[in-house]
Amino acid sequence: MSEDRVLRVGLLGAGVVGAEVARLMVANQVDLAARAGVGLIISKIAVRDLTVDRPGIDPALLTTDAESIVADPEIDLVIEVMGGIEPARTLILTAMAQGKAVVTANKALLAKHGAELFHASDLADVDFYYEAAVAGAIPILRPLAESLVGDHVERVMGIINGTTNYILTKMHETGASFQGALLEAQSLGYAEADPTADIDGFDAAAKAAILAGLAFHTQVTDEDVYREGIRAITADDVSVAKAMGFVIKLLAIAEANELHGSTEETISVRVHPTMIPVTHPLASVREAFNAVYVQCESAGELMFYGRGAGGTPTASAILGDLVAVARNRNEGSLGPTETDYADLDIAPIGVSRTRYLVRMDVADVPGVLAAVASTVAKNDVSILTVRQEGRGADAELVVLTHIATEAALANTVRDLRELAVVQRVVSVIRVEGLI
Amino acid sequence: MSEDRVLRVGLLGAGVVGAEVARLMVANQVDLAARAGVGLIISKIAVRDLTVDRPGIDPALLTTDAESIVADPEIDLVIEVMGGIEPARTLILTAMAQGKAVVTANKALLAKHGAELFHASDLADVDFYYEAAVAGAIPILRPLAESLVGDHVERVMGIINGTTNYILTKMHETGASFQGALLEAQSLGYAEADPTADIDGFDAAAKAAILAGLAFHTQVTDEDVYREGIRAITADDVSVAKAMGFVIKLLAIAEANELHGSTEETISVRVHPTMIPVTHPLASVREAFNAVYVQCESAGELMFYGRGAGGTPTASAILGDLVAVARNRNEGSLGPTETDYADLDIAPIGVSRTRYLVRMDVADVPGVLAAVASTVAKNDVSILTVRQEGRGADAELVVLTHIATEAALANTVRDLRELAVVQRVVSVIRVEGLI
Repeated sequence: MSEDRVLRVGLLGAGVVGAEVARLMVANQVDLAARAGVGLIISKIAVRDLTVDRPGIDPALLTTDAESIVADPEIDLVIEVMGGIEPARTLILTAMAQGKAVVTANKALLAKHGAELFHASDLADVDFYYEAAVAGAIPILRPLAESLVGDHVERVMGIINGTTNYILTKMHETGASFQGALLEAQSLGYAEADPTADIDGFDAAAKAAILAGLAFHTQVTDEDVYREGIRAITADDVSVAKAMGFVIKLLAIAEANELHGSTEETISVRVHPTMIPVTHPLASVREAFNAVYVQCESAGELMFYGRGAGGTPTASAILGDLVAVARNRNEGSLGPTETDYADLDIAPIGVSRTRYLVRMDVADVPGVLAAVASTVAKNDVSILTVRQEGRGADAELVVLTHIATEAALANTVRDLRELAVVQRVVSVIRVEGLI
Repeated sequence: MSEDRVLRVGLLGAGVVGAEVARLMVANQVDLAARAGVGLIISKIAVRDLTVDRPGIDPALLTTDAESIVADPEIDLVIEVMGGIEPARTLILTAMAQGKAVVTANKALLAKHGAELFHASDLADVDFYYEAAVAGAIPILRPLAESLVGDHVERVMGIINGTTNYILTKMHETGASFQGALLEAQSLGYAEADPTADIDGFDAAAKAAILAGLAFHTQVTDEDVYREGIRAITADDVSVAKAMGFVIKLLAIAEANELHGSTEETISVRVHPTMIPVTHPLASVREAFNAVYVQCESAGELMFYGRGAGGTPTASAILGDLVAVARNRNEGSLGPTETDYADLDIAPIGVSRTRYLVRMDVADVPGVLAAVASTVAKNDVSILTVRQEGRGADAELVVLTHIATEAALANTVRDLRELAVVQRVVSVIRVEGLI
């Protein structure tokens, strides 16, 4: 261990986020030291390529040998911003075993190996902080794990992927197709060349697992999360939603199933395109912004809004964690750790309950509505509203259901497809936020 | 001290908030104990009147002798929800001196005697938490003091008084007069019989002082806060604002003056009616909801939204603090304390800079605009837009200025009043949130 009046940091990764962490630690060093009660110094930075030009970063700090950082007895704390599962996982575990605190922004790793990492930090008696892993700069994990710890969280609904929110905002506001909006997002740097992790919901699912774990005091991994991305959302879906006073968002939802009348205490965790009323607080979250809406038994509705990605906003969250660890260290203590005492079961998707909008192409003949309504009713699903759009070959029936289980809805759709009067089930989109 | 496996709580006050704290501590005791790592037990409750019926509260716990609670060696932690300055201040100081942690929701006390209380808790080596004091259930103090501690807060703008937000919402949405909306708020329990503390901005000013202190690492008291309430806001003001795409909110604003180009590092803290564009995130905060918008150098824009008052929401925040203290105690440590190292000067209101909307009754004669424009310019204020409403005796000139100091604006208004063509300066309302 180094002397007490400085805290020596090893940085794993100097990409978009890591470079900002390094820059801000120098630019703000006086304030950071005053707040942390100790000087914060970057000792070493692990990078993949020493030849890249890194303005503002002292080249003498760079190394390609990440293991030398986690093994360095002079280093007190490791910030991991390299991303991915390996070698990040092994490096973090090694750092902890060496008695180093760890701060990370690695949602994918937390969603897969969170329990292992929490256990390792407990064993090694070191702090492990990861506010930056979900919703970038927005303080959401500390509020969930600490501020709301005296309450019962009933539901968390979040827009926690900026890329998909940007695409869906453009589709809603300009009528663009999914492909058109994706290309625009790519050209502006909001979407990667391979956008799979974002648009197929993998990124949001990892974050949903982390949020659900904290909200419900239960271990949740990315594999527990039901996941549908936004690839199948068409300009028509958006336009139908808009005409009905809704907006389509990719929501991550974690909720206690008793909320919907289940007697078993289980939770559902799911990521999928969702229609919400334009009056819902999440509806006005535009472009690449994120927001997390939390419904609690006592606190009622809360919302946390801000920038969910980007080097500087993410660095803000990392530096907040860094100061927290430094303060704990001054006190000779550790921050609060995750509790998973509730150990709730995660319900299979069939058990989840919500409302659905079902669009279908139908024959323009008498008795269509009766046939559809009786098929829906047969599956124990109730209809809230039906509207028919167009006539003749273009006739479309738009059915909004009452709350039903996913299983009942799946059976309904299967049976609707077999009806002679239904030419095609065009889309099924879940609906949240109606009272 | 009592045995380690329980934490004994003394409750000072069993009004709207205290009764909910007592009820929830019993109703949720299993979960609270699991999360706190220790059983949480109410030992005693101080009330003013033993004869009041208090459903769900064990009468054996009640006492009118609050001092017996803060002196009781068996009690580990005191929750103060009686409100007011005395005897709350003396009771809290005594509790701390006796080695007890303190949790409070008392914004008035914190805004007046915060520094004394922080100092006393430091001296006594006890935890002092007060998340419930600002914006009720919304986690905002912990995010400011901990999550954003690695960042530079540039500005905090909050709707932190539910009563005035309810009144202004009604005025905006129904065209009601101030008096009409106030009466409605009173009949619904959103405003007290004597509404002074709310509508004249005292409540918001106390909370603004607390927010500013945390955001800028500086001691700020309620006397440092410039304060104007909403009493003078007319249905006409609201209607003019609405026609221009604005909504009027009572905002608490704490900001670094360098944001507006000042070279001296000072802060301004002020509470006043403020026009903001309807597209601003704060504009859609309706009725009694609160929200705090925070602008940071690295994190960018953030917003925290939820219920700012009410027994159950406020109890949620208090129980979060209670669990935090219990966890610290298990670790033998204390939570992070306030820093006031920055010790910034609080600028007089004349130095504050913002935009202004000035409405004036003018004579309908040629040269009015020229006379007004030259008077404004003479005072170093620039005009962004002017519009003239009505004709003849009803002619009104509505001037929206560029950013100017309060001092320059005050001089402008003084000179406008002296112009022969200006019959009356009807109102001056500050404008925020324009880009």
